[in-house]
Amino acid sequence: MFEAKLGQAALLKKIVEAIKDLVTDAPFDCTETAMSLQAMDASHVALVSLKLENGLFEKYRCDRTISLGLSLSELSKILKCAKNEDTAVIQYADDAGDSVTFTFEDAKCRKQDITQKLMDIDNEHLGIPDQKYACVIEMPSGEFQRTCRDIAMFSDSLQISATKQGVVFSGKGDSVSNTVTYSKNSTADDDDKDRVFIEVKEQVNLNFSIKYMNHFCKATALSDRVRISLCNDVPVVIEYGIEEDGFLRFYLAPKIEEGNDMD
Amino acid sequence: MFEAKLGQAALLKKIVEAIKDLVTDAPFDCTETAMSLQAMDASHVALVSLKLENGLFEKYRCDRTISLGLSLSELSKILKCAKNEDTAVIQYADDAGDSVTFTFEDAKCRKQDITQKLMDIDNEHLGIPDQKYACVIEMPSGEFQRTCRDIAMFSDSLQISATKQGVVFSGKGDSVSNTVTYSKNSTADDDDKDRVFIEVKEQVNLNFSIKYMNHFCKATALSDRVRISLCNDVPVVIEYGIEEDGFLRFYLAPKIEEGNDMD
Amino acid sequence: MFEAKLGQAALLKKIVEAIKDLVTDAPFDCTETAMSLQAMDASHVALVSLKLENGLFEKYRCDRTISLGLSLSELSKILKCAKNEDTAVIQYADDAGDSVTFTFEDAKCRKQDITQKLMDIDNEHLGIPDQKYACVIEMPSGEFQRTCRDIAMFSDSLQISATKQGVVFSGKGDSVSNTVTYSKNSTADDDDKDRVFIEVKEQVNLNFSIKYMNHFCKATALSDRVRISLCNDVPVVIEYGIEEDGFLRFYLAPKIEEGNDMD
Repeated sequence: MFEAKLGQAALLKKIVEAIKDLVTDAPFDCTETAMSLQAMDASHVALVSLKLENGLFEKYRCDRTISLGLSLSELSKILKCAKNEDTAVIQYADDAGDSVTFTFEDAKCRKQDITQKLMDIDNEHLGIPDQKYACVIEMPSGEFQRTCRDIAMFSDSLQISATKQGVVFSGKGDSVSNTVTYSKNSTADDDDKDRVFIEVKEQVNLNFSIKYMNHFCKATALSDRVRISLCNDVPVVIEYGIEEDGFLRFYLAPKIEEGNDMD
Repeated sequence: MFEAKLGQAALLKKIVEAIKDLVTDAPFDCTETAMSLQAMDASHVALVSLKLENGLFEKYRCDRTISLGLSLSELSKILKCAKNEDTAVIQYADDAGDSVTFTFEDAKCRKQDITQKLMDIDNEHLGIPDQKYACVIEMPSGEFQRTCRDIAMFSDSLQISATKQGVVFSGKGDSVSNTVTYSKNSTADDDDKDRVFIEVKEQVNLNFSIKYMNHFCKATALSDRVRISLCNDVPVVIEYGIEEDGFLRFYLAPKIEEGNDMD
Repeated sequence: MFEAKLGQAALLKKIVEAIKDLVTDAPFDCTETAMSLQAMDASHVALVSLKLENGLFEKYRCDRTISLGLSLSELSKILKCAKNEDTAVIQYADDAGDSVTFTFEDAKCRKQDITQKLMDIDNEHLGIPDQKYACVIEMPSGEFQRTCRDIAMFSDSLQISATKQGVVFSGKGDSVSNTVTYSKNSTADDDDKDRVFIEVKEQVNLNFSIKYMNHFCKATALSDRVRISLCNDVPVVIEYGIEEDGFLRFYLAPKIEEGNDMD
């Protein structure tokens, strides 16, 4: 028996919208302490890692470790049936065979039960090694999304270079080049929601596929802030926190030849 | 001479938007007491019945019974030229030949006259027999629309089953099944706009084409409430009231083999 | 060296959106006193004339007269990167070779520099002769836009006829004809933003391509008011003022055979 209840369906909707275009089918691993998901995108370039600790749920019960394999495009349609403020219960009964049931309920008199068939999904867990990063940027997620969108208009690549003074995102197309600079705002206090925070141990200058960055930015609705962890020759981590009790992380290796903008 | 003036063009806009995708050309029958329209959809499956009593109009004059045959797609474009709060006059002069004129006027200094050619339309009036229904549901029209949309995501059919306790709308697709339950809210008072009212003489359990139900739901803008009248082996009536002085009703026969979801 | 700074990027965005579908590449002529642009549309039917006097800018410096040839579709994409309230600086350094740089900055810590390559554009300046007009209409730009859109639904031509009593816009299609009348509102005072002002020396009755009129109406965002100057056998001028220090004007010759609605 697995049962987990969210106070608002909105959270689940935002998570699935953020990853469904990268990952078509995925295993949700349920343990006593958390639901989590780890999956490569279809072309095996980016890694998605999601963790929802039981503290995020109003109710959480998991009698034994299970893995629920779900089609995310189907799940996205199912979640479109829920209103943001509906409660959402995810339930798997051991004797229910091969399906999971989502129950959405409003504060009035409507209750919706949707049953989705489970899929068999090969679940190759990648160990993600602990990593020290040369540079960590924390900034408003909306600003990062806007900048990726701006760069993508003219270029296939996003170059990120960071120094103690600030961070520069740039891209170069045939006849237009675009450079966005965020200066470190030393006067802003820690609570400033617009604050750009940069921690640089070593200067970095890395190139990434802008297409994938734009995919990751679909998680912007999940959190006001995004954390970008960079290190030479190591995949970048783009992390969106989920209410102190979870995260959605995307990993992407840098392009090897800098300045080579072929896709 | 026929002349009818509506205080707000919005009403006419909503009516035409609600039926134009079901019925392409239709005869508006004008008598001394009311404008009305009765038409089958193009595939002769659903029946649309509209009645606008003269009390709905600021001015209403009809010297002799006439039938105005109009292209509804053209009429829809004409009504797009009116703002919701414009006044709308429909005028047919006996000596004007084969056209009707719509006049939209705002509170400032704009007046728009649009003349539309009449069409010859075969006007076979179907007698709709008085019917006693086993079950009548009255509920918020927005809830019915939302439920039809949710069911349509996974299924071709909408099953409606009603008991004294509540009404269940459900649909079953290949890998997802969806069940929406509205419990009878006995504590809500009669004025509660969210109230779901169910009158059951006999339990019913009927299957309908969800595609047609979604067509009917385009009338949601016309009224906050919808009335669903059901009886075994008899077409369902989906009715939207129009300001106490009129209605828009849709009739649709149930699918014969229950559980057979072929379209 | 040329440098011009706008307090808000919105102005530049609105201008480029207004003309980019008519004119694909255009020369921005910069002098000590103004930036201006004059170009025919691709099919050499309509003329666009833009003037931005230096009073519109927060900073303006032009050491020598230059002409900056720019792709407007590219420029439109560049301006999509600016937020409405960002400041916008346009800069051309004589030693920077063949490019111009746009700098958008917000009130926080974001700065974006976008460099666009210049184009060689044949710059044939048409002299626009001073003209006395038989009739000048000044009206809310939104009303003019709405009327052109309404007429375009049924007709290829827009007929404008003006008398001292009012102005009539009309169009005639196969089965629908549409006539919009604005009566001169003599009681409204001069400050009334809804006022329709008509100055008629001679009655006019002219036909224009509605397709071009709809193009011109994309400038509606630039100004609450539009001025339409008409005279028989002479191109109409559709003018949008820009904050007292500039204008965007469109010129279009009338259709020769009145009532001949072939496109």
